[in-house]
Amino acid sequence: MTPTRVSERAAAIPAFEVMDTVRAARERDETVRTAESSLPETCHLEVGQPAAGPPAVALRAAQAAMAAPHGYTDSLGMPELRSRIAEFHRERHGTEVDPERVVITSGASAGCVLALAALADPGDAVVVTEPGYPCYANTARVLGLEVVTARVDSSTGYRLTPDVLDAAPLDAGPAALVVASPANPTGSVLTRSDLADLHRWCEDRGTTMVVDEIYHGTSSERLPSATGFPDAVVMQSFSKYFCMTGWRLGWMVVPEQLVRPVERLSQNLYLAPPTLSQWGALAALGATRELDELATSYRSNAKILEDVLRSHGVVDIAPAEGAFYVWADLGEFGDSTELCSRWLRDIGVAATPGHDFDGHRGHRFVRFSVAGDAEMINEAAARLGRWFTTAPRDPFGSEQQ
Amino acid sequence: MTPTRVSERAAAIPAFEVMDTVRAARERDETVRTAESSLPETCHLEVGQPAAGPPAVALRAAQAAMAAPHGYTDSLGMPELRSRIAEFHRERHGTEVDPERVVITSGASAGCVLALAALADPGDAVVVTEPGYPCYANTARVLGLEVVTARVDSSTGYRLTPDVLDAAPLDAGPAALVVASPANPTGSVLTRSDLADLHRWCEDRGTTMVVDEIYHGTSSERLPSATGFPDAVVMQSFSKYFCMTGWRLGWMVVPEQLVRPVERLSQNLYLAPPTLSQWGALAALGATRELDELATSYRSNAKILEDVLRSHGVVDIAPAEGAFYVWADLGEFGDSTELCSRWLRDIGVAATPGHDFDGHRGHRFVRFSVAGDAEMINEAAARLGRWFTTAPRDPFGSEQQ
Repeated sequence: MTPTRVSERAAAIPAFEVMDTVRAARERDETVRTAESSLPETCHLEVGQPAAGPPAVALRAAQAAMAAPHGYTDSLGMPELRSRIAEFHRERHGTEVDPERVVITSGASAGCVLALAALADPGDAVVVTEPGYPCYANTARVLGLEVVTARVDSSTGYRLTPDVLDAAPLDAGPAALVVASPANPTGSVLTRSDLADLHRWCEDRGTTMVVDEIYHGTSSERLPSATGFPDAVVMQSFSKYFCMTGWRLGWMVVPEQLVRPVERLSQNLYLAPPTLSQWGALAALGATRELDELATSYRSNAKILEDVLRSHGVVDIAPAEGAFYVWADLGEFGDSTELCSRWLRDIGVAATPGHDFDGHRGHRFVRFSVAGDAEMINEAAARLGRWFTTAPRDPFGSEQQ
Repeated sequence: MTPTRVSERAAAIPAFEVMDTVRAARERDETVRTAESSLPETCHLEVGQPAAGPPAVALRAAQAAMAAPHGYTDSLGMPELRSRIAEFHRERHGTEVDPERVVITSGASAGCVLALAALADPGDAVVVTEPGYPCYANTARVLGLEVVTARVDSSTGYRLTPDVLDAAPLDAGPAALVVASPANPTGSVLTRSDLADLHRWCEDRGTTMVVDEIYHGTSSERLPSATGFPDAVVMQSFSKYFCMTGWRLGWMVVPEQLVRPVERLSQNLYLAPPTLSQWGALAALGATRELDELATSYRSNAKILEDVLRSHGVVDIAPAEGAFYVWADLGEFGDSTELCSRWLRDIGVAATPGHDFDGHRGHRFVRFSVAGDAEMINEAAARLGRWFTTAPRDPFGSEQQ
């Protein structure tokens, strides 16, 4: 028997802890469901998954599509979906996007793999923010890229700026800059002039700007889209605004020169995105009226949670202007991985420890998803409120860094 | 505006031509459907996609699952599906597979990415066969691996053997050997002793054997599975035997030491496989009786096509013992890319040129998929038969190599 040699990259890649937390919370749910259990239901604040299911029209469209042949589509996705998305960008953002530049992907995760593989070779640098979505950096490393982090904090409202980028340890222009608006986990958003500043920074360095807009539609205002820049890569998803997480579908808008390279990569690495999901998505694009209403609930849910945190002395809370997370410094109460385990076990509140979102200060931070329904958020806030009143302030909390 | 720098790997990756042919054939279909067209319907022999749709139980299960929340699952897939697959291996192959070693993937394509990334680092060697499924090699190169090809031909019935491997240009033991049984495009199958020989070859070199078994169930006999070797990686799919191509779902059985590294990679690169597809797949695993019957039609379809080819003097045809392809040397009639374009245009038969399956001799070969229904295969055979009777033998055909 051959002892399995695990590659260095696989040995080195950290877990995406959100998914580990999802599993731990599901295992608790299974215990709760047993007849003997008197445990309270779990409050799920661990994963960025809207409580609202997909729009009814999406479900109906996918069901209808099942009745007809529904094999592989083009690798870049169904032409009618690509056209409809171009129209969506015109309606929502006033940007003109050639449908040929729209690439349907197997979730935004696939978009990230395709964009980074198409833009950078092993050894090339790519810039990401910290705190930020950890899978960008982890995916980049699997692809052999050098990851440079630009550290954002409360001094800029957790927004990425050219000054923050200039302070990053870069020798030359990186191949790509990956930035999100709204950002996960901080909820910070970029204005039109913020985007223009970052675009200019990239332009001066021959860097491609990659903008994650998967949380567009979750803030109270309509945000500017980087699809206004024909040389930018924009990543989008049907998981967040469209509430279709399990359907694993997203899209990208890519510069013209990238279409065919991305298509060839997609043909080899993915074959094609899931077909029924594409039919569902095509219908969901018409359900913006009901989907826009959800943004209001995310903002009010965030407020409920922020209030309980602030009332117990938590002061460093990221802006949560968009997306559906509250990112808060709870270092005073102990290491966040410890804290999240304790909450899940003792009060049935599942939240995500911060250290994979931020390698430097994340052990102090917790990410709460507020995409659940208001009742669950209120219940979680009540349980946390009770917990805070008796919680010992940990010596660890005095650490200032 | 920044001129887009396309990475070297993206510039170098060839198209998976099957998917380009799919698109060309779909575009022809659109022309045929216009009112003015008098063109005959396209015979689709270009893509490995069963004409039979998914089992009815799979459709019903996916529809039922839509009525309940269906968000992200565990990255490794739903526990009930992993258990059911372990049971499937016990039933079909008599092998004992711990459900913990079963990894649900977003198609076998994702399995290939995960397996290669988990087993090999940039610069490491991986062996693939030629002819063979081109995406293995292309994916390996995107991940920075050195691809070594072992050339199989009619002298071994297109089977990979230790002798063939010893003739490959290898300095040391490769990180992985990727081999398929039944193989695409040749349809060759490995017996129990063939597998044992290859396993011994790997064992002697510290190489992990990766066996693609996605065409299991398409041959007339039950084939031995490499799941009998606990140190092997086995890739499987719901696309072929289970007729669920557009659902983008597959699985792997991996050595115990690889489970957690693969899980971490999957969390970061994919998040989770599609949820409704997992519910459909769980039901499909119980539909083996109806699915087993399809194997008979693939074998008789292959025979129809082989007969017409042989009757027009085509002699080098791979065995087609399993899978659903006929791989034949048509070099006498010209370059196969040219030939396939001509067939699509002139007689409405879509087939796939061979050069991405075989960089050396593929320009002579065509791959015909016989997963369509018998009526379509008969019609394609009739059209090809008529074409052959008038086709000029090309000087290119005299080339012997």
